[in-house]
Amino acid sequence: MTPLAKPAIIVHGGAGDLGPDDPASSGGPSASRLAGVRRAAEAGWRVLAAGGTALDAVEAAVRLLEDDPTFNAGTGACLTAGGHVELDAAIMDGATLACGAVAAVRDVRNPVTLARRVMERSGHVLLVADGASAFARAVGVPAVDGASLVTPAQRDRWEAAVEAAPAGPSGGGHGTVGAAARDAAGHLAAATSTGGTFMKLAGRVGDSPLVGCGTYADDRLAAVSCTGNGERIIRVTLARHAADLAGAGRSAMEAAREAVRTLGERAGGDGGLIVVGPAGEPGFAHDTQVMSRAWTRADGTVVAEL
Amino acid sequence: MTPLAKPAIIVHGGAGDLGPDDPASSGGPSASRLAGVRRAAEAGWRVLAAGGTALDAVEAAVRLLEDDPTFNAGTGACLTAGGHVELDAAIMDGATLACGAVAAVRDVRNPVTLARRVMERSGHVLLVADGASAFARAVGVPAVDGASLVTPAQRDRWEAAVEAAPAGPSGGGHGTVGAAARDAAGHLAAATSTGGTFMKLAGRVGDSPLVGCGTYADDRLAAVSCTGNGERIIRVTLARHAADLAGAGRSAMEAAREAVRTLGERAGGDGGLIVVGPAGEPGFAHDTQVMSRAWTRADGTVVAEL
Repeated sequence: MTPLAKPAIIVHGGAGDLGPDDPASSGGPSASRLAGVRRAAEAGWRVLAAGGTALDAVEAAVRLLEDDPTFNAGTGACLTAGGHVELDAAIMDGATLACGAVAAVRDVRNPVTLARRVMERSGHVLLVADGASAFARAVGVPAVDGASLVTPAQRDRWEAAVEAAPAGPSGGGHGTVGAAARDAAGHLAAATSTGGTFMKLAGRVGDSPLVGCGTYADDRLAAVSCTGNGERIIRVTLARHAADLAGAGRSAMEAAREAVRTLGERAGGDGGLIVVGPAGEPGFAHDTQVMSRAWTRADGTVVAEL
Repeated sequence: MTPLAKPAIIVHGGAGDLGPDDPASSGGPSASRLAGVRRAAEAGWRVLAAGGTALDAVEAAVRLLEDDPTFNAGTGACLTAGGHVELDAAIMDGATLACGAVAAVRDVRNPVTLARRVMERSGHVLLVADGASAFARAVGVPAVDGASLVTPAQRDRWEAAVEAAPAGPSGGGHGTVGAAARDAAGHLAAATSTGGTFMKLAGRVGDSPLVGCGTYADDRLAAVSCTGNGERIIRVTLARHAADLAGAGRSAMEAAREAVRTLGERAGGDGGLIVVGPAGEPGFAHDTQVMSRAWTRADGTVVAEL
């Protein structure tokens, strides 16, 4: 029996630039993001406080962020060059290294839950595109019309970009969501979900659903979820890199900061990450203007920051 | 100007079990595999000896293995549960950390070359399924009928498995191909290509096209290509793990062996990998019965082994 550990959770709502005239106090997007990550951390904490697993906690937190139209994941995802949503997500259990992921899925409301089904029921780790949808139907995850996930704000943004041709992939990773947690049994888990890069090519997969890049969890190392420029994050396998730094003795905060430095030095930067270390301590870092995040203090109160 | 370095290349033709009654001397599959990896190493070596880049060398070697019906990549790929080929590949440039990959592609003869186009011309790292095919057409990679990639041997194997229901994913990673090289400028590159797991679900993506899992290259660390049970390899991000071991001072051979030990201890084993270290020394290890491979000695002669 593992000795009782202090549960902990940290969530993020994406790294990116602050929009113009968007102080958190204005009730604009930043205020919505702060409120959203706070709600998600509280939801994950309730799971943990009731004795639930880190895996259940990160799934609950990420589902809530997927359903929040403020974030670029699930409902509210940004659109591809072709004007569709294509969703990516991953989840990983640090106790067993079991993991599941989906990418380029157009018809599922909560990709993180489908990722968990892949982990638990497919015999595979990563399913993409139509194959992921077929698996979803086989395990009872209902189809939704992709258009139901498109918010008016994202539709407007896409229409403006298409008019301002030549269009192409452009920033906008802002709003990827993720969670990392430790439960009372001392086990870690991480999950990440995203709509990917605004105006991405059809079929583009970013770092979020890739184990070791956007998402990683190993009880011996850390639980990590990343956000930002996916193509750059992939080159340095950022999540695994941060986990290894924690495994080499850095605190979660030090590991996060050093990982962001590596991202900058080797791949040009433009990202961030959250980390929970084996002792349950939260860490985070980003080289973007902001990265919305929320985490629990030891007494269960939640801190939310941009 | 980097001082002139000794070029080096190592290729593999997949880790797996030796079939019954299949000594390499019999002219059966093992003899074909040995001949195939030898030809591929020679093709890569010719590129390097002529002053070509490691990137060109690994692409040339892997293309040859994709076209060889002996291997589970390109022509000769094994079939999904639905009876199709779905191909995965990745390529990575250790000098820049640039990388490109494709997955679940049905209509391209040489996925490794499409992966290189993704790296060089898409602004993305990984494109999957129909999106990858659309990109292929946009950059002039011709469509082939997926049926033209199916060999009689793979069709027979699939038909036998379907009759022997219940069918499901089963071994058969045997035959994934890959290459790792260093060029005269001292730069590293790696590439991997596969048809994936026999009887896999549609849309399943294994380790091969995932940066850090099946494929990794960083001039400061090593170039690595993996083969075997993809779902297990992903859990320990085997390629990045081996590269980090080389970066921590292990020889390429030691790094390969230690990485295979980690795969066994943390994820149940069943795989192998090839490594080229920063000094150009080849390394390899596997915990499967065999892993066909070939590499060049300093004088350019090729050693091929099972």
